[in-house]
Amino acid sequence: MLSASVEVRVRYQETDKMGIVYHANYFTWFEAARIELLDLMGCPYSSLEKDGFYLPVLSCRADFLSPAHFDDRLTVRVEIKNLPLVRIEAGYEVLREEEVLVTGETTHAFVSAEGKVVRPPSDFVEKANRFAGL
Amino acid sequence: MLSASVEVRVRYQETDKMGIVYHANYFTWFEAARIELLDLMGCPYSSLEKDGFYLPVLSCRADFLSPAHFDDRLTVRVEIKNLPLVRIEAGYEVLREEEVLVTGETTHAFVSAEGKVVRPPSDFVEKANRFAGL
Amino acid sequence: MLSASVEVRVRYQETDKMGIVYHANYFTWFEAARIELLDLMGCPYSSLEKDGFYLPVLSCRADFLSPAHFDDRLTVRVEIKNLPLVRIEAGYEVLREEEVLVTGETTHAFVSAEGKVVRPPSDFVEKANRFAGL
Amino acid sequence: MLSASVEVRVRYQETDKMGIVYHANYFTWFEAARIELLDLMGCPYSSLEKDGFYLPVLSCRADFLSPAHFDDRLTVRVEIKNLPLVRIEAGYEVLREEEVLVTGETTHAFVSAEGKVVRPPSDFVEKANRFAGL
Repeated sequence: MLSASVEVRVRYQETDKMGIVYHANYFTWFEAARIELLDLMGCPYSSLEKDGFYLPVLSCRADFLSPAHFDDRLTVRVEIKNLPLVRIEAGYEVLREEEVLVTGETTHAFVSAEGKVVRPPSDFVEKANRFAGL
Repeated sequence: MLSASVEVRVRYQETDKMGIVYHANYFTWFEAARIELLDLMGCPYSSLEKDGFYLPVLSCRADFLSPAHFDDRLTVRVEIKNLPLVRIEAGYEVLREEEVLVTGETTHAFVSAEGKVVRPPSDFVEKANRFAGL
Repeated sequence: MLSASVEVRVRYQETDKMGIVYHANYFTWFEAARIELLDLMGCPYSSLEKDGFYLPVLSCRADFLSPAHFDDRLTVRVEIKNLPLVRIEAGYEVLREEEVLVTGETTHAFVSAEGKVVRPPSDFVEKANRFAGL
Repeated sequence: MLSASVEVRVRYQETDKMGIVYHANYFTWFEAARIELLDLMGCPYSSLEKDGFYLPVLSCRADFLSPAHFDDRLTVRVEIKNLPLVRIEAGYEVLREEEVLVTGETTHAFVSAEGKVVRPPSDFVEKANRFAGL
């Protein structure tokens, strides 16, 4: 299974005057979980960019079930939901202990430095398959 | 029609190392358009909060068709898609001149200071209907 | 005088759970005022970057006299305090109507794409002098 | 000595189109180090707020010696520079391994929920003195 998780501690800066985490910040945490997953796969995102591959966000969504607050310690889980990987779909859960606060999704494609959609690098596909146990 | 738009100029802070606007920032611009719409309706959001009504984001999504860049001048349009307004659905478009760069959606409900879902204030419903031409 | 100002309306995203603007956000507004000043001088920052010149922030500071709140409409004034311009010093004031809420300062130098400090482009110096009325 | 440190990993969201960390983000990391220091002292900031004490930022500054980049793993050190603590002065260093990238400072005072400057809670003073080894 292509999955990973990171721990985040809610920063004061991430709250708003409602006293809860501003909704857009969850997408930054989703990013942190993706970066971790790429690390675990052996394809750190910074290396991909050095090789001329970018993984911009094509779409994203989130459902906010329950608010997170300042200083909460949260777990952000990501799971790649599809193989092969021409259009990558990642699903997310943000948990405070056992409680799911937020679920979400992002989709991505590999693009070149010029912004053209390209095939995923073969090294990436191989490592993804190996990590997924295929 | 319940709609409004604001102009935004892309800040350097809103870009990332890909040289484009970081995707999560669009949700902040969606917020700016919502605030403008509430102003036009005669129900400024700050007044709603003073009366004890909050409009948190229950869900959001966006599709990124084409990137925006530093210093771009963009139009962010919002339209409330449903009446009555127990669960408010807002649709968005971000345009650079005639080109649609991003589309999106947010849903909201009125909640009390204690976080309970409540009916929209009757003054709000009345003004929304009037503004919508109903 | 090398000065300019922009109007900003405080976004919900810019507040924190204390109900006021999170302090770091003022630096983003300082940036917006600088960008405006470069525009007025006839040297838009995006053109400078296209010509290979960057103006990173070398240092910054701010004094917070009084908090700004959600939906406040503020004026952010910038003034370049020194000529010639090897090391650019910019001073700022953030006002709500007549009240000064925040004062600040940033320093900058021109650097090349490789990150080396370079002389300011001569076109820039000329336009700065003209704009300053020298 | 009243000091603490946290590790941060640079998020993509924290970079800008210059390919480096946007300067204002360091202040958010300074905050993370302060929060950690209060934890170590036995006075978590969330408890202070529950007791009606707030520690807003009265002033801040930073000197940027060398840029940080995406995915850098940094150490953010904070040290309280003065006792007693009517006006708290905190100094910071951001390091990448042995290299100091940024130095900074923030000042704070305790204020009540109504925004009035108040004496630090006696429990806080006691714990600070004990932690400082006085």
